[in-house]
Amino acid sequence: MASLSCSADQLAPFFGPNTTNATAAAEYICNQFTAVSDRFTDTGYAIDTTYLLFSAYLVFSMQLGFAMLCAGSVRAKNTMNIMLTNVLDAAAGGLFYYLFGFAFAFGGPSNGFIGKHFFGLKQIPSSSFDYSNFLYQWAFAIAAAGITSGSIAERTQFVAYLIYSSFLTGFVYPVVSHWFWSADGWASASNNGNLLFGSGVIDFAGSGVVHMVGGIAGLYGALVEGPRIGRFDRTGRSVALRGHSASLVVLGTFLLWFGWYGFNPGSFNKIFVTYNVGNQPYYGQWSAVGRTAVTTTLAGCTAALTTLFGKRILSGHWNVTDVCNGLLGGFAAITAGCSVVEPWAAIVCGFVAALVLIGCNMLAEKVKFDDPLEAAQLHGGCGAWGVIFTALFAAEKYVNEVYPIPGKSTRPYGLFMGGGGRLLAAHVIQVLVILGWVSATMGPLFFILHKLKLLRISAEDETAGMDMTRHGGFAYVYHDEEDSNKNSIPMRKIEPAGSS
Amino acid sequence: MASLSCSADQLAPFFGPNTTNATAAAEYICNQFTAVSDRFTDTGYAIDTTYLLFSAYLVFSMQLGFAMLCAGSVRAKNTMNIMLTNVLDAAAGGLFYYLFGFAFAFGGPSNGFIGKHFFGLKQIPSSSFDYSNFLYQWAFAIAAAGITSGSIAERTQFVAYLIYSSFLTGFVYPVVSHWFWSADGWASASNNGNLLFGSGVIDFAGSGVVHMVGGIAGLYGALVEGPRIGRFDRTGRSVALRGHSASLVVLGTFLLWFGWYGFNPGSFNKIFVTYNVGNQPYYGQWSAVGRTAVTTTLAGCTAALTTLFGKRILSGHWNVTDVCNGLLGGFAAITAGCSVVEPWAAIVCGFVAALVLIGCNMLAEKVKFDDPLEAAQLHGGCGAWGVIFTALFAAEKYVNEVYPIPGKSTRPYGLFMGGGGRLLAAHVIQVLVILGWVSATMGPLFFILHKLKLLRISAEDETAGMDMTRHGGFAYVYHDEEDSNKNSIPMRKIEPAGSS
Amino acid sequence: MASLSCSADQLAPFFGPNTTNATAAAEYICNQFTAVSDRFTDTGYAIDTTYLLFSAYLVFSMQLGFAMLCAGSVRAKNTMNIMLTNVLDAAAGGLFYYLFGFAFAFGGPSNGFIGKHFFGLKQIPSSSFDYSNFLYQWAFAIAAAGITSGSIAERTQFVAYLIYSSFLTGFVYPVVSHWFWSADGWASASNNGNLLFGSGVIDFAGSGVVHMVGGIAGLYGALVEGPRIGRFDRTGRSVALRGHSASLVVLGTFLLWFGWYGFNPGSFNKIFVTYNVGNQPYYGQWSAVGRTAVTTTLAGCTAALTTLFGKRILSGHWNVTDVCNGLLGGFAAITAGCSVVEPWAAIVCGFVAALVLIGCNMLAEKVKFDDPLEAAQLHGGCGAWGVIFTALFAAEKYVNEVYPIPGKSTRPYGLFMGGGGRLLAAHVIQVLVILGWVSATMGPLFFILHKLKLLRISAEDETAGMDMTRHGGFAYVYHDEEDSNKNSIPMRKIEPAGSS
Repeated sequence: MASLSCSADQLAPFFGPNTTNATAAAEYICNQFTAVSDRFTDTGYAIDTTYLLFSAYLVFSMQLGFAMLCAGSVRAKNTMNIMLTNVLDAAAGGLFYYLFGFAFAFGGPSNGFIGKHFFGLKQIPSSSFDYSNFLYQWAFAIAAAGITSGSIAERTQFVAYLIYSSFLTGFVYPVVSHWFWSADGWASASNNGNLLFGSGVIDFAGSGVVHMVGGIAGLYGALVEGPRIGRFDRTGRSVALRGHSASLVVLGTFLLWFGWYGFNPGSFNKIFVTYNVGNQPYYGQWSAVGRTAVTTTLAGCTAALTTLFGKRILSGHWNVTDVCNGLLGGFAAITAGCSVVEPWAAIVCGFVAALVLIGCNMLAEKVKFDDPLEAAQLHGGCGAWGVIFTALFAAEKYVNEVYPIPGKSTRPYGLFMGGGGRLLAAHVIQVLVILGWVSATMGPLFFILHKLKLLRISAEDETAGMDMTRHGGFAYVYHDEEDSNKNSIPMRKIEPAGSS
Repeated sequence: MASLSCSADQLAPFFGPNTTNATAAAEYICNQFTAVSDRFTDTGYAIDTTYLLFSAYLVFSMQLGFAMLCAGSVRAKNTMNIMLTNVLDAAAGGLFYYLFGFAFAFGGPSNGFIGKHFFGLKQIPSSSFDYSNFLYQWAFAIAAAGITSGSIAERTQFVAYLIYSSFLTGFVYPVVSHWFWSADGWASASNNGNLLFGSGVIDFAGSGVVHMVGGIAGLYGALVEGPRIGRFDRTGRSVALRGHSASLVVLGTFLLWFGWYGFNPGSFNKIFVTYNVGNQPYYGQWSAVGRTAVTTTLAGCTAALTTLFGKRILSGHWNVTDVCNGLLGGFAAITAGCSVVEPWAAIVCGFVAALVLIGCNMLAEKVKFDDPLEAAQLHGGCGAWGVIFTALFAAEKYVNEVYPIPGKSTRPYGLFMGGGGRLLAAHVIQVLVILGWVSATMGPLFFILHKLKLLRISAEDETAGMDMTRHGGFAYVYHDEEDSNKNSIPMRKIEPAGSS
Repeated sequence: MASLSCSADQLAPFFGPNTTNATAAAEYICNQFTAVSDRFTDTGYAIDTTYLLFSAYLVFSMQLGFAMLCAGSVRAKNTMNIMLTNVLDAAAGGLFYYLFGFAFAFGGPSNGFIGKHFFGLKQIPSSSFDYSNFLYQWAFAIAAAGITSGSIAERTQFVAYLIYSSFLTGFVYPVVSHWFWSADGWASASNNGNLLFGSGVIDFAGSGVVHMVGGIAGLYGALVEGPRIGRFDRTGRSVALRGHSASLVVLGTFLLWFGWYGFNPGSFNKIFVTYNVGNQPYYGQWSAVGRTAVTTTLAGCTAALTTLFGKRILSGHWNVTDVCNGLLGGFAAITAGCSVVEPWAAIVCGFVAALVLIGCNMLAEKVKFDDPLEAAQLHGGCGAWGVIFTALFAAEKYVNEVYPIPGKSTRPYGLFMGGGGRLLAAHVIQVLVILGWVSATMGPLFFILHKLKLLRISAEDETAGMDMTRHGGFAYVYHDEEDSNKNSIPMRKIEPAGSS
């Protein structure tokens, strides 16, 4: 493909000395081409911002998906509580990520550990980041918090939620995203100076950065809190505490699916990038974006079908909520490698993700671990599988197109694709480091909250439900007449009962 | 409008022999323009892919709409069953359409009956199709399956669903879309060699290809199964088995409306196409896209209002679920002609569509046909009307802009617009051929399933509800305390009761 | 930034007399650049239309948000009624806005009071307006009607709804939008001839034009109707008539949040506009669009958090529905100034908006004003605050970029930013004029409906619920078996009971 590069120095000699003013003519013409080139630059900003903003809106819609999924998965008596945490993930996250989260994550130039510019969006927009980048990353940050709130649902004090959620969105998550996604991050695949193992980590949309972080945080929360009352009976047998609305679960799942098209393909940030493949003028980043949407779809679909038949064999039911969770596990797994693997590999990814989730759930039952949303298993387990999967199946061509190293023609890629073990080494490090970092930050936090008696609600509150005791009433009133006395409470100041 | 076409052969002579190297100067300049032209090509790919992908996401959101509409329209005891079919339409559809559906539909070069390339997306991307085209068409394919599952809701074995749904998405629907939408299709309006009746079929977004196919498949399913128990009482009087949640019905309807903006305007696939209308530089495919969104809106709105007043007269109620169905009938009808008719004609389309739906529903009552979602009436009946409507009202100007024939200035258009009867002839053929093809494939399939006793559930299961007997429990648990014994079932392997 | 402006008259002399045909060469070259320039124009139409249409779809999704928010906020017995009004806002609004609403609002050239062209979209597309503009404005018009229907929920005759809704969408609202948004409007910030106070009103996305209009109309409706039965007990004490589903409230709120990204950033209409800031080639309208999404987000987030803690102090609860309303109040307030204020100012906006809403609600309780959705308080009160806020905090730089006056380098901006009092004067006028206009139109309309006994339903109907008496049955049927006799009504013509 021809490239636009008019040079008066090259053009003028062709006109030669007989032309009245060859230099002026050449400059005049080349200046026009410069103007054309500038206009293409503007065109790129307009297209890419349109692409990124609407992707950000899609990612934001996942917050609604989480809210509905969580609401449907808990018992009716805790619906308002869990939905409030979802609304606040977005709202508090908006302020914290504006004030310092984005700065910790992307504020460059910085060291490899944490960013240190752009607090309160100072210096934005710049040649590196525009407001749209902030909005997109904010939508990611609140997703991580949303995952964790699922793990500790139905038994956590609201004050504890406010504390850990702020800490997670404002500090723990931004630091991890700095490591792997900022150009300054020590393990970033686009770190110019020094690639980890000569490779860096390819966690495109965050199986590790988002899902493992949220899932492991939830793991610690749920471990410290222990199971809900009644989740395991006196003999230790597991008792399903079914969510109160399968409709809300399906609604939430589909919304998450819808939003994942912003999460994964949107992580390119730009769509107007030419790849300059000789005889394929139609091939560019727009194709890679589309391919990413396809791999995402196929991984989720395969995981859903695998779960359908797997659970049919195990439980004898065709279970829609299990299928929904399987689907989401497939998405969580493909998120790391979605842009750099072939569609057929995405099918492998989804198949294994479903088995990973089933296995994690069996293990959780066995060790009496209670996570009402299966969030630790799903986002933690399938997320970790996704990180490893990418190191096995990343294709050479795509890795080089999506993560080009200036001046180099290739970089390490998937082990099973003949790309050697360096990418895998980097990804094993990623899994361990995320596990370590979240353990070292969120683990102690939950433990301190527990010791201060700020973490778990009282047994009476848990039995009665938090909506009645803390949030002003039951979420639903279907039969007005008979229940009117019970549900239409006179409006007056109600004394806060105890600490929260 | 000036066109970009720099030729060194034309430019060099103007410089003439006194210029040092006229040819080199001219080539240098024209090469720059070639680079500019290439960059515009890339720009087009970036814009069009952005447009198509987000349209695909909207169409996908219709699957959520279907799920909510179906859930709300059935009785509570079958909610999980119907939602599971909606999730699986998308999931199984994703795999099948990737493996062979897309190939059957668009795999060219091929014969007029069925495509034969692109299995597993081999050879994609190409100059004709990118990943985004696959994703968009997949979202269409699963919509067809979603329609059918509504018709046979509340009484169909899950295994039967798995079989017919795969067959429909993987074979029956792709073949029909090949006929009318592939450039190789025998009745396609863009068939280069041989236009049916010199016209071909203009079914822009699929009133016939999608809605009639799904609706007629549902018709056969519901006919073979017969009505739900209690739908007609002993004296033969019709008894409304009301859906369990009007909120879900409205939610689903609005989501379908939202998604239809991907379905209809999105069917252009590209928005960056210039029409070169002399004194109207502002007029191009972007206007046609907007006009399509407007015709879609007006048809639905008119149908909704017509239904509101029509049903008020007939039943004495202002009925929101009827209005929702009327609205959707208007959309199903305008889908064929949305891009080629004037806005005022869309109002005619919607008005008649509402009457068609009311009439079909009356007929269904009379012949004791039971379709819980009115899907056969709505998608089949209104879809057929939409096909005919297009042949009557397609405007000459729009037909030639949207379906240009290289080297020809005009083609047949709507009968009532003075365009003759050839388009109508082609569209009558379309209605008959779709009816015949779906009858010849889905009819026998449902009949065989019926004979093998794989189609309908037992009377006991139907009375108890499928959620309890096959899907692990009731979809809702609103009152935990009192119902806890009933709803919190101990988790253990439950022996499958009978065949499915 | 270089600008594209090839002139053969300038270029030819550089070639000079020795060139064989200098003029022809220069013209040939410049013609190519003209073609390039035309192609950029087309590119702009394609990008901007994509941007505007998808924004319109987002704004449309707010109608679904309203429907769910309203449904969840009323008692179960009136669910179908309120949802039907939301569906019809969109449907009837589609027809009326097509026939004359858009013409009244934007039909230019016209006088400053009302538009007078484009009835039935005649003359569309033109160089000023395309179909996409109509669709976008229609989605705004129906939002205004949706606000009002919340204020008078649970006690209004359906016929009254049909009348006031048509009047509001078809006339009252379009006239207001003409005043402030049409280039011909007497108070428009882009009025070429005569700017009000040399400034005009900067109500970017309609805190005044949409939210105040809808809210004040609701205020009059609710005032004329009086409170719902039981809302204030015999001693005058306020009794909360709780909505029937907090899940629907949260669902609706998130959908409104999602849609607001179409409402506010979308109001630019175009994203491909260069600002030509010398050393910041990356800065253009795309940045302003992103900034608008950020200010919108921050205002809503701050308002939500302020409400959370404010209501905790006042009532002792962590209340999710209050937080939802606070969030929406923040959005309604930032809507006027979203494009012209700094992100930090948006935080101020949201903080005050939450206090305004709490204050308005206290006042409403005190004067026994009953608005089931708090719509008058939220959209009226916070909307008015937003109009004033903009006049205080609009930043000079942004005002001049977003509302440039040809040939002038600056215009009045926010009082607190050093921009003088002229913008504030214009905005005070806006608040008063909207209050006056809506009072003069909707006030008498509601009063006449009241006198004709067409406004309020009977006490019996109100107690029984409108769904049973007017809309064919209760919205929900959760327990089929036991309730089957009650809910499965034989299908027959039911005589309309009385007038509606």
